[in-house]
Amino acid sequence: MNQSLKNDMTAIVNASLAAVLPDEAVARALADYKPAKGGRTILVAAGKAAWQMAKAAVDVLGSVDAGIVVTKYDHVKAPIAGVECCEAGHPVPDGNSFAATKKAVELVSGLTQKDTVLFLLSGGGSALFELPLIPGEELQDVTRQLLASGADITEMNTIRKRLSGVKGGKFAEKCAPARVFSIVLSDILGDPLDMIASGPAYPDSSTCADALAIAKKYDLKLSAEAEALLHEETPKELDNVTTQINGSVRELCAAAAAKCKELGYEPVMLTDQLTCEAREAGSFLASIIKSHAGDGKKLAFIAGGETVVHLTGKGLGGRNQELALAAAPGIAGLNAAVFSFGSDGTDGPTDAAGGYVDGDSLAALAAEGLDVFEVLKDNDAYHALAKIDGLIMTGPTGTNVNDAALALIG
Amino acid sequence: MNQSLKNDMTAIVNASLAAVLPDEAVARALADYKPAKGGRTILVAAGKAAWQMAKAAVDVLGSVDAGIVVTKYDHVKAPIAGVECCEAGHPVPDGNSFAATKKAVELVSGLTQKDTVLFLLSGGGSALFELPLIPGEELQDVTRQLLASGADITEMNTIRKRLSGVKGGKFAEKCAPARVFSIVLSDILGDPLDMIASGPAYPDSSTCADALAIAKKYDLKLSAEAEALLHEETPKELDNVTTQINGSVRELCAAAAAKCKELGYEPVMLTDQLTCEAREAGSFLASIIKSHAGDGKKLAFIAGGETVVHLTGKGLGGRNQELALAAAPGIAGLNAAVFSFGSDGTDGPTDAAGGYVDGDSLAALAAEGLDVFEVLKDNDAYHALAKIDGLIMTGPTGTNVNDAALALIG
Repeated sequence: MNQSLKNDMTAIVNASLAAVLPDEAVARALADYKPAKGGRTILVAAGKAAWQMAKAAVDVLGSVDAGIVVTKYDHVKAPIAGVECCEAGHPVPDGNSFAATKKAVELVSGLTQKDTVLFLLSGGGSALFELPLIPGEELQDVTRQLLASGADITEMNTIRKRLSGVKGGKFAEKCAPARVFSIVLSDILGDPLDMIASGPAYPDSSTCADALAIAKKYDLKLSAEAEALLHEETPKELDNVTTQINGSVRELCAAAAAKCKELGYEPVMLTDQLTCEAREAGSFLASIIKSHAGDGKKLAFIAGGETVVHLTGKGLGGRNQELALAAAPGIAGLNAAVFSFGSDGTDGPTDAAGGYVDGDSLAALAAEGLDVFEVLKDNDAYHALAKIDGLIMTGPTGTNVNDAALALIG
Repeated sequence: MNQSLKNDMTAIVNASLAAVLPDEAVARALADYKPAKGGRTILVAAGKAAWQMAKAAVDVLGSVDAGIVVTKYDHVKAPIAGVECCEAGHPVPDGNSFAATKKAVELVSGLTQKDTVLFLLSGGGSALFELPLIPGEELQDVTRQLLASGADITEMNTIRKRLSGVKGGKFAEKCAPARVFSIVLSDILGDPLDMIASGPAYPDSSTCADALAIAKKYDLKLSAEAEALLHEETPKELDNVTTQINGSVRELCAAAAAKCKELGYEPVMLTDQLTCEAREAGSFLASIIKSHAGDGKKLAFIAGGETVVHLTGKGLGGRNQELALAAAPGIAGLNAAVFSFGSDGTDGPTDAAGGYVDGDSLAALAAEGLDVFEVLKDNDAYHALAKIDGLIMTGPTGTNVNDAALALIG
């Protein structure tokens, strides 16, 4: 075990996670927040992290003039002064979703130019924050038709934005003339703002023509009411909205890079949109290390995203643990480490956030009679890493902005 | 098809290949070559590219005082003035290998400090350049024992260096007091100079203790003569040798980087030792592009090495073609390209050197009714790329220093 690199890993993991906790993300975003003189601040929070984001905002601001939280069942932890906390259905919206969203719309009605809607959005908002313009049953039926036809998520959202009273930028329109200060905790790679919760406060990039083409392509059965809605254009510009993505895999990687720099590494940001097989990403990172290990510089290569694992065995593990373990042979004997961790603190069905290996790990595994290739074939990275003290344990973190993998050259 | 990026690809491929042709590599290395005043130049070339390297050297120098080429059967293309051209067995050494190597050793005997041995080494030299210190049959028997026992290549070479009269630095010892100017065309990732052709002119990193431990570990059956040789130490320092690796995947990548810079890209060297699944490397490179496409800079990420393909279908393709094709979905719609090519000009069992895709390729494939996932499942990248003009055709190049993959952001 290379204790020096392992200590650096712990420092980097802790600093990165701290930066994307809902509380931190909101506090950082609010550093720029100044309500207009004499204006009111209305808080609207929707998504799985809505309660935490609202709590953090009220803690920072001292108070808000009114507010509402719409989150998943069992996600409200305590009352928040001046804020109504509602729980609703996820991933399928239910009556409570619609009722709470209706209250939010009422709260932002009749505001003036001086007022601000503090809009706190996190993953899960698509289901939790919804006010359909057609009966709930028909919305469900259209959703089912789209799913059965093989429509992709962009096509689904193009239709749903038009059948909703708040999606596709319409919520921000309802807030006008008040200003909308939107803080987003993103769980989608690349942070497509009109896709996260279907973008209630972001201009819609899809058009009526797109929607009609999709309806025709999949031969959707629609009521006359729904058909008419497809002809109504969504907002293409919203001049009353400021958006801050403050809590995303990009933030996670940026915080990791900043900590690396502080520890004396030169950080190289490879990607924050990694999507490939976990173990092959580990091999790729090991290849980068092998090539740069002789440069005479402390380097940190950073790749954020969401890799995948194909199950071929019956072991225990997760994508971050597989990524790290797969890098062990390539970096054997080098003053280098590869580690990967999930920001939610739980990698796959395990209690570990991820895995860590360094130049000594291959020998340590061999001493335990373990072969990396065989362990990966059995998808049993957890037990192998446990034996060489290679598990990263953080406990559940309360956030989820995907993963970060790092390759350190010491 | 993004014609601008495609033109850049062609320019980069051509410039990279030119830099690692045996002729170019030798000519570049000889720019630094100055024979001592009054000294003689003896040329010894061994390996699959020996004839081409020798021809290039004589063309550059005008003449040599004596010389010998040891290459594979059918690899001598024409006589070279002042140089004896021999052909021998590969990958299994035969009597002609031993005879030619013996001539080479005679040629470098009795030289003075003023003389120089120009030693030109390329892949295949392990078999072609060999003069065993035990009977050839026993050498073959020991090799068979090692192979059957599962010894790795380092273990094999540690034993073989001690049973050989030229491997493990011993050829350079025989040249002393003459100076050895060694030019290496490398086909092994990382250019381990004591491994390429078992390092006839490079200090040996393995020891007698290593050799004896291996003999014990695998319970090798050795004659008393062979046993005694394991106790004889190989050279650990060679002060009469200058080595230039001038033709390796590192050179290939460096030449690609130089051309990228000339074309206005900022080159980022990721690795020259890439070893992972070809299609996953393509996804990784696409992830890098997606993350940096908005940077507002022309960037070129470079990864050299040798990826692998697992066959699951019956189509036609190669690792470079699979890598490129796999990147198509990730870069769809972007002003970017991913391409990969083998320096030998033949990728897998095809007449293409590799594959090219850009932001328009996914749509072009769809228009042909082709799905990337399905094509890769059938390992049929060749036919898919052929339909969208995505094959890189160079013809056989006469060199082999592995592959280079590039991700361009235009």
